[in-house]
Amino acid sequence: MQKLIFTNDVTPALAALISELNPDRIALLCDSNTRFIAAELAPAGADIIEILPGDEHKDLEQLSRVWQHLSQSGFTRRSLMVNVGGGMVTDLGGFAAATFKRGIRFINVPTTLLGAVDAAVGGKTGINFLDLKNEIGAFQEAVAVIISTRFFASLPPEELRSGFAEMIKHGLISSAETYRRLIDFDICRANLAELLPLLEESVNVKREIVAQDPREQGLRKALNLGHTAGHAFESLALERNHPVPHGVAVAHGLLVEMILSHMQAGFPSAELYRYAGLLKEAYADVPAISCQDYPDLLRLMAHDKKNTIPGQINFTLLRAPGAPLIDQTATPEAIQTALDLYRDLLNQ
Amino acid sequence: MQKLIFTNDVTPALAALISELNPDRIALLCDSNTRFIAAELAPAGADIIEILPGDEHKDLEQLSRVWQHLSQSGFTRRSLMVNVGGGMVTDLGGFAAATFKRGIRFINVPTTLLGAVDAAVGGKTGINFLDLKNEIGAFQEAVAVIISTRFFASLPPEELRSGFAEMIKHGLISSAETYRRLIDFDICRANLAELLPLLEESVNVKREIVAQDPREQGLRKALNLGHTAGHAFESLALERNHPVPHGVAVAHGLLVEMILSHMQAGFPSAELYRYAGLLKEAYADVPAISCQDYPDLLRLMAHDKKNTIPGQINFTLLRAPGAPLIDQTATPEAIQTALDLYRDLLNQ
Repeated sequence: MQKLIFTNDVTPALAALISELNPDRIALLCDSNTRFIAAELAPAGADIIEILPGDEHKDLEQLSRVWQHLSQSGFTRRSLMVNVGGGMVTDLGGFAAATFKRGIRFINVPTTLLGAVDAAVGGKTGINFLDLKNEIGAFQEAVAVIISTRFFASLPPEELRSGFAEMIKHGLISSAETYRRLIDFDICRANLAELLPLLEESVNVKREIVAQDPREQGLRKALNLGHTAGHAFESLALERNHPVPHGVAVAHGLLVEMILSHMQAGFPSAELYRYAGLLKEAYADVPAISCQDYPDLLRLMAHDKKNTIPGQINFTLLRAPGAPLIDQTATPEAIQTALDLYRDLLNQ
Repeated sequence: MQKLIFTNDVTPALAALISELNPDRIALLCDSNTRFIAAELAPAGADIIEILPGDEHKDLEQLSRVWQHLSQSGFTRRSLMVNVGGGMVTDLGGFAAATFKRGIRFINVPTTLLGAVDAAVGGKTGINFLDLKNEIGAFQEAVAVIISTRFFASLPPEELRSGFAEMIKHGLISSAETYRRLIDFDICRANLAELLPLLEESVNVKREIVAQDPREQGLRKALNLGHTAGHAFESLALERNHPVPHGVAVAHGLLVEMILSHMQAGFPSAELYRYAGLLKEAYADVPAISCQDYPDLLRLMAHDKKNTIPGQINFTLLRAPGAPLIDQTATPEAIQTALDLYRDLLNQ
């Protein structure tokens, strides 16, 4: 069973894990952003492998560099990788470990909030290929994940807000009470020590869902809440050379999908107003849309790889906070109505 | 649970499987040797992906070509790959399928005896990397394997003998009775219809072992019988530009390891003479060795990736036919004595 360790004392936690796993060799994987953290955490004798940073380098070339280092330095099936970084590093490093000699053990040490709450737990590893996100990969869990808010102090504020949107999503699909605690938390003036217990609760939501459905055959699809519309916002912003962080786009996708939930599944309208207020305060950096953007947004939603039935757009919806409904669809007309209401709620 | 289908009526068996799996797209993977078989088996509308043949092309370049075809042709998580070929095609194709969109289903149709008895069943997929065999890969079972002796008619005789050595190995680790039936079978004048039931028995030995220990933590290591010495013979022949087929080298490795089994585990000496007789008749194409070759053979055995304790050489040994012992080691001195006896038995 995977270990999740929540602590701001990372070095001794890592040392204890290593002592238990007893690997013959250790490599820490990092990028130029996390090189200093990796150097600080590295036990004596460990290798440090540095790859180029950013999602545009989550590719076969960087992956081959990691494989090459492991091969040429004599790593064996008993060796260990420690991935120190954001989602890009834990995704690529997890896939490198999952496939080196048909799989060696790895530990994730996420250094961003988005990485901690989303990428580092759940076993989805992989790389982009031919500009398609996560086109090549494997399901393989880290043997352990060490989660600390200590690394977040130096992150830009939008990274915290981006990760926090995924925490809100976990609240929405798990319980009304958790959701309430999250929207009452002020992420823009966050105290990182106070964030750690909320993060622990949030990561455990994901862990429990993944344990029940590791390969996304059913329940795990609940984690896609906000992502059909969110990915469309993210891709549209990228196409127009005005990129927004993933989680910020998801924060807006959540509102669109709450509205669809209201239209199709009885989600309470009072929640829409409350959540729109949070968006206006903390997530105002997604460009306003107009009805002229609808065809592009619908095209992007139709291309989402979660769609399995041609011509239908798949969503996870909510009956209420804490009550998700997977495998829902909506017509283009319903989605346009939801986008109209979205703009109204945000006064666009 | 994986399906193993033993039939010489391959086309209807494949059609029935496809109808049950109901994929949205199908790709048959082949190389230039098996192109005609793939074309014959392909259902209407299926893609055929052809890669370069031979173990030297079981590499990242051919793998990328397969991924690229799947991506660019719009394959989804509901698509199916059918790998038609020897171990090179089923290993590479299995790994491509295991990693495309984090895993799609695949069927293996082995077209060589070695492929049928060894590579196609058991979930070991992968490619060579930096000239290291199977350095990158994954454990992923085919959803089904269709095994037919029909394709073997056009194979060169050494391919049949090569695959047959792995069948003998399966006999040795499973039961004295199965082993006896195999060494009484004349593979050099084989009737392929009579081979099919023996092959079924042999593949089921492997299937049962893999089901109990998919990731080679224990019992599965029994399948390595003959391979520590066999790989050393194979690599030595390759280094000297006089390559021998894998299974032919394993046939000789089996004798060395039976001798070690006699020395260390009470394996009956009468079996050594009997098996040496079979080797002299059917596997005479491994170059004779002299004591000057011992240092090279020991070096190659020491580099085997199955060794987990530095300085010790790992073997699977036998108390008797049908009674394997995993996680055994032998000293260099014992191995040299075994090589002396090996040469005596073969009159080298």
